[in-house]
Amino acid sequence: MSSTFGTMFAVTTFGESHGGGLGVVIDGCPPGLHLDLEAVQAELDRRRPGQSALVSQRREADRVEVLSGLFEGRTLGSPIAMLVRNRDADPAAYAPFRDRYRPSHADLTTEARYGLRAWAGGGRASARETVGRVAAGAVARQVLAALTSPPVEIVAWVDRVGDVVAGCDPAQVTAAAVDAHPVRCPDPDAAAAMEACIREVRKAGDTIGGVVRAVARYVPAGLGSPVFDKLEADLAKAMLSLPAAKGFESGSGYGGLSLRGSQHNDLFEPAPPDDPQAARLPSGARVRTRTNHSGGIQGGISNGMPIELSVAFKPVATIFQEQNTVDRQGRAVTVRPRGRHDPCVLPRAVPIVEAMVALVLCDHLLRWRGQCGAGG
Amino acid sequence: MSSTFGTMFAVTTFGESHGGGLGVVIDGCPPGLHLDLEAVQAELDRRRPGQSALVSQRREADRVEVLSGLFEGRTLGSPIAMLVRNRDADPAAYAPFRDRYRPSHADLTTEARYGLRAWAGGGRASARETVGRVAAGAVARQVLAALTSPPVEIVAWVDRVGDVVAGCDPAQVTAAAVDAHPVRCPDPDAAAAMEACIREVRKAGDTIGGVVRAVARYVPAGLGSPVFDKLEADLAKAMLSLPAAKGFESGSGYGGLSLRGSQHNDLFEPAPPDDPQAARLPSGARVRTRTNHSGGIQGGISNGMPIELSVAFKPVATIFQEQNTVDRQGRAVTVRPRGRHDPCVLPRAVPIVEAMVALVLCDHLLRWRGQCGAGG
Amino acid sequence: MSSTFGTMFAVTTFGESHGGGLGVVIDGCPPGLHLDLEAVQAELDRRRPGQSALVSQRREADRVEVLSGLFEGRTLGSPIAMLVRNRDADPAAYAPFRDRYRPSHADLTTEARYGLRAWAGGGRASARETVGRVAAGAVARQVLAALTSPPVEIVAWVDRVGDVVAGCDPAQVTAAAVDAHPVRCPDPDAAAAMEACIREVRKAGDTIGGVVRAVARYVPAGLGSPVFDKLEADLAKAMLSLPAAKGFESGSGYGGLSLRGSQHNDLFEPAPPDDPQAARLPSGARVRTRTNHSGGIQGGISNGMPIELSVAFKPVATIFQEQNTVDRQGRAVTVRPRGRHDPCVLPRAVPIVEAMVALVLCDHLLRWRGQCGAGG
Amino acid sequence: MSSTFGTMFAVTTFGESHGGGLGVVIDGCPPGLHLDLEAVQAELDRRRPGQSALVSQRREADRVEVLSGLFEGRTLGSPIAMLVRNRDADPAAYAPFRDRYRPSHADLTTEARYGLRAWAGGGRASARETVGRVAAGAVARQVLAALTSPPVEIVAWVDRVGDVVAGCDPAQVTAAAVDAHPVRCPDPDAAAAMEACIREVRKAGDTIGGVVRAVARYVPAGLGSPVFDKLEADLAKAMLSLPAAKGFESGSGYGGLSLRGSQHNDLFEPAPPDDPQAARLPSGARVRTRTNHSGGIQGGISNGMPIELSVAFKPVATIFQEQNTVDRQGRAVTVRPRGRHDPCVLPRAVPIVEAMVALVLCDHLLRWRGQCGAGG
Repeated sequence: MSSTFGTMFAVTTFGESHGGGLGVVIDGCPPGLHLDLEAVQAELDRRRPGQSALVSQRREADRVEVLSGLFEGRTLGSPIAMLVRNRDADPAAYAPFRDRYRPSHADLTTEARYGLRAWAGGGRASARETVGRVAAGAVARQVLAALTSPPVEIVAWVDRVGDVVAGCDPAQVTAAAVDAHPVRCPDPDAAAAMEACIREVRKAGDTIGGVVRAVARYVPAGLGSPVFDKLEADLAKAMLSLPAAKGFESGSGYGGLSLRGSQHNDLFEPAPPDDPQAARLPSGARVRTRTNHSGGIQGGISNGMPIELSVAFKPVATIFQEQNTVDRQGRAVTVRPRGRHDPCVLPRAVPIVEAMVALVLCDHLLRWRGQCGAGG
Repeated sequence: MSSTFGTMFAVTTFGESHGGGLGVVIDGCPPGLHLDLEAVQAELDRRRPGQSALVSQRREADRVEVLSGLFEGRTLGSPIAMLVRNRDADPAAYAPFRDRYRPSHADLTTEARYGLRAWAGGGRASARETVGRVAAGAVARQVLAALTSPPVEIVAWVDRVGDVVAGCDPAQVTAAAVDAHPVRCPDPDAAAAMEACIREVRKAGDTIGGVVRAVARYVPAGLGSPVFDKLEADLAKAMLSLPAAKGFESGSGYGGLSLRGSQHNDLFEPAPPDDPQAARLPSGARVRTRTNHSGGIQGGISNGMPIELSVAFKPVATIFQEQNTVDRQGRAVTVRPRGRHDPCVLPRAVPIVEAMVALVLCDHLLRWRGQCGAGG
Repeated sequence: MSSTFGTMFAVTTFGESHGGGLGVVIDGCPPGLHLDLEAVQAELDRRRPGQSALVSQRREADRVEVLSGLFEGRTLGSPIAMLVRNRDADPAAYAPFRDRYRPSHADLTTEARYGLRAWAGGGRASARETVGRVAAGAVARQVLAALTSPPVEIVAWVDRVGDVVAGCDPAQVTAAAVDAHPVRCPDPDAAAAMEACIREVRKAGDTIGGVVRAVARYVPAGLGSPVFDKLEADLAKAMLSLPAAKGFESGSGYGGLSLRGSQHNDLFEPAPPDDPQAARLPSGARVRTRTNHSGGIQGGISNGMPIELSVAFKPVATIFQEQNTVDRQGRAVTVRPRGRHDPCVLPRAVPIVEAMVALVLCDHLLRWRGQCGAGG
Repeated sequence: MSSTFGTMFAVTTFGESHGGGLGVVIDGCPPGLHLDLEAVQAELDRRRPGQSALVSQRREADRVEVLSGLFEGRTLGSPIAMLVRNRDADPAAYAPFRDRYRPSHADLTTEARYGLRAWAGGGRASARETVGRVAAGAVARQVLAALTSPPVEIVAWVDRVGDVVAGCDPAQVTAAAVDAHPVRCPDPDAAAAMEACIREVRKAGDTIGGVVRAVARYVPAGLGSPVFDKLEADLAKAMLSLPAAKGFESGSGYGGLSLRGSQHNDLFEPAPPDDPQAARLPSGARVRTRTNHSGGIQGGISNGMPIELSVAFKPVATIFQEQNTVDRQGRAVTVRPRGRHDPCVLPRAVPIVEAMVALVLCDHLLRWRGQCGAGG
């Protein structure tokens, strides 16, 4: 079940970039939830192409239709199927690649895996595949909000483009600040520099990568299912399943390696009773840590502090320059892509990363409740 | 099923650091394989404590007993259960932590998750939990060897300790070179510096983290199951499920972010017919890439080039210094750990990382065969 | 994942009787298969209401649309999503049941499970839910046909309605004979008696149950995954997951209990080389059994003989008579259903049972290939 | 994962009849439960051979050892591994079957599936495989007892041996009455007749089958996960995964087919407030049904009434008479089993059926809590 993610809140996506459409089936959603479909659409709008000059100009309204699982606006507990139609497909742009493998794309590997591929578009390997994830993630956010208090808050932002690195305090970043600039970096100076970098790269027919950083606040302590389904393990899987993702960090990540244990350990201290960001112990006491190198996760389980992670996205493989490659017979040839592509996926990756965080947290919240919840 | 990993080659581990023992059940192993139990034991020996002065001095022979799934030395296709007894448990050393949470351990989060914990030892959060993974990984290696030609080769090594970074060419690292030094770094100069660093840190009652890097050679092109079970996604999950892991990179990882697409793309070229490291296309042609920024994986599917990844391990949380923390009632207290602990997990993490790579590759090989294999 | 069935050939269904539509996502379909969509539609046509005077008169064309997973008519190996729209919904007919639980329906239990229900129709508990199963089963049949030789052949028929029992030799029943009569019983005399029974029952505003029997021919020996996923176990689950199913038999079933072991055992004998219905041993020899009390399955694994099973379907719960029941406040009330319902589900259950057999066999064929298939 | 059963309360069994031992790993057990290990042993004692003259004389104490998952007598929420050693293996008795397939055994099919088999015993196909199920089932019962009030009560009994059928009112059968006679039939007259039948059959070197019937009382309304994981579907799978099982009925089963809907429907009525066997509606009201043809399950979900089911077990395949069969080369030969075997599995099947019922109910209770439970 390679297109299913999650165990209790299980999401199955389908669709190729140029087929009938893309969608998702959510199995296991708690029943009785008033689903805000506008909020679902709003997340899809944040993801869709054509939002700004910085991203792909493919014209897709990406309107979502709910096919099942709702009655009088409420979730039934049965599968919620959601569908987004493809409208602006342009298969002709892909004809040159029918028999030639674009470098660092999934063209060759898809054929190695399956023996064929949907060459008239990126097929299942297209970033368009994430439509279903974003729709499901928007539902997961609402489930989380309904089941936690204060409601879990998930914010991601572009923290790096090429060598431009933002200077943000994860504790202070707000969703409004992120969306204030089309590059989705809440540090205005860095945002401007990132935009300049993307424009320059696009002009050169080239592409650039970067880092999305995310924080999840008010996650209850106790989520995560060691040993294999540790919270970090499922978050890492969620992120590395995204197109172009090549790295993941939880908390201090690679940056913490210069520290010694005595510097890296997060010391516990009593928390004020009104601190929304703290762990509630079985005894009822509330505690927090002075630092958060752990990124809110210790032993694979949330500790009540903000969950912090980063994802590295490589430069987009589609560049508008002639490149050497091979054809299906293994002969040396060249390709020069055309079509509508993002010079940098980072701005559009922000809602996608948030969606994946929401899916992981929602699944683990239900898993916790099933195994350890109060009452029968 | 939080202690099960894999779908076709499914591994379920059990055991706490101070209970009756640790073990694993492998469900789905191909039948008819002559299992080399000495090779399994050899991997456990590489993982066990007490191997050198650099690691924990807990004395565990870690002899493995196979309880099921074998007949006359061959795998039956039924579950293979393997058990390693705990011998040198020392619960008394943990008495001070019965009611106090060690900083950056899983003590507090385990209680938040389950309401109680096995305080007389690290319980399920102990690195000792990885015994079952290593035993299963040793079986997975043998399955891979039997089903691939040239046989898949997996080598991991310590690439960084604190700020000491090795200078290794992943293409050249051999298992023998790795095990030649107790620190398991194949760069002799770096190994010496790492050892010095570990000794100094240990003397200070402190700990240090680092990076394990791994390469898998001769992996057939075509392994990986988009979209959620991309090869990188499952590798990332495998690695982040390890104790103390905080980061993961596939291929160029974070280091590739300074490159543009035109620099980062791995151009395809025809491969010589005798190149063992190349993709076989459906047409029968063999191709390879000039560079390997992709780390052998494109679109979440192996491309025939060496798979390259790295894992960041934070400094061990157990330091032999007094630290501030809280007790179960949330009151400020101090702790000062004692017991037998590694000042640096990196050397012992090497066989564990290799085992997890083997588990992921073996599972995906069987998944590929099930969906796409020749014949009914 | 309560709406997902299968592990390698994993089918996720969605949809309620009166929502936007019904559908299915097939994950794990072997790639490269030329999919015959007319054959899929033909199975849906066999299942849909309004085919004859014996079944529900709801008017649904049940035209299937493939949303993903196909390219140029071939399966891509990615999820195949199929959608059938609801057209002739009649929610007004259900208004009387908004606050009253129809006896022996899922009304009350759905609310006990989820706290609410889609009262304007049977919701997810409607037999209309099986649309997705039948569409997926039609794909599974094609996969089986492509991977087996002679191709697996699955035929089900109505073997009993009320107390009218057919006299059929399972070895001789053909699909054409089954569909020759609207009641789908290949014994003409019994078919006529069954039809008379159904007409009489319908006239009385009442309903009747019965037995569907099925045979699967040319199933290769070796399918089934002990211990929990024995072939009979998965078949039993498949059948008991159908609406109104209350019993299952494999081979001799309850009827074999009057026999002693010496009578019940199926003795092996050498098979003629051209016998399509025989087991091929690892040695290459072909053998068969003289009798088939085992119903083609021994130890939970197919033995090459025809797989034979039966399913008992209770009388439909919707009767057109006034009945005592309770309302949502637990008060004694009465209900008198109206709407369009089958007086007997048996004729329409035939393609559904066949679909479920196909799903189970296809999944197990791929599982076998993954674990035990030739080559890497 | 063919040896794993359940999703939230997931049980993985291992072991062959003549290997090192048999066991089980329970993943997902609620934490904090004081586990009564004597109760676990007591269930194993009910299952083990040598209890009476009616069953196999293999001498196995079947003492269970808990390897993990417990601390100070309480469940940790981590995997509970339990091991039972094989002691009285007698591989020599099986030498004649090394190259010959015993009729109606799993010998041939196991080789067809895996290419080899553990011929020195029944291997994984032995009824001895159920040791792990019974141990896990005994834990599941305790979880159910802890989470339900009144505690769920599961009682099975032998309802038929050959043509001897008991006359029991499922509502009245008690565990004590079942165990009062070695044949485990609570109807004394029928028990005596069954015992006579078994003795006669054994004397003739023959075997006999029968029916185990089970009831689960006080199961809360609302358990079951449509559409594929309906309660009946998972119960059917559980039962048909047992050695020698060939049939399953839920509620009226095949017997209900002579009734019309108006006779078969179970009419709801208000329940007295102190009726322990009733459904609690979302409104708080309590209702019950006048009859229970549904066997406590409607639409695949429990309705608060007693769950009633039956399982048909075929005559044991091992008869002590010469029989025709084939050898591994497909040549006609004869076999004449010896060894220690049950002439009738029914008495020992009783605790096994109870265990499987407990596993299904426990899993569904946790699934319900995860998806629909109160609180986050």
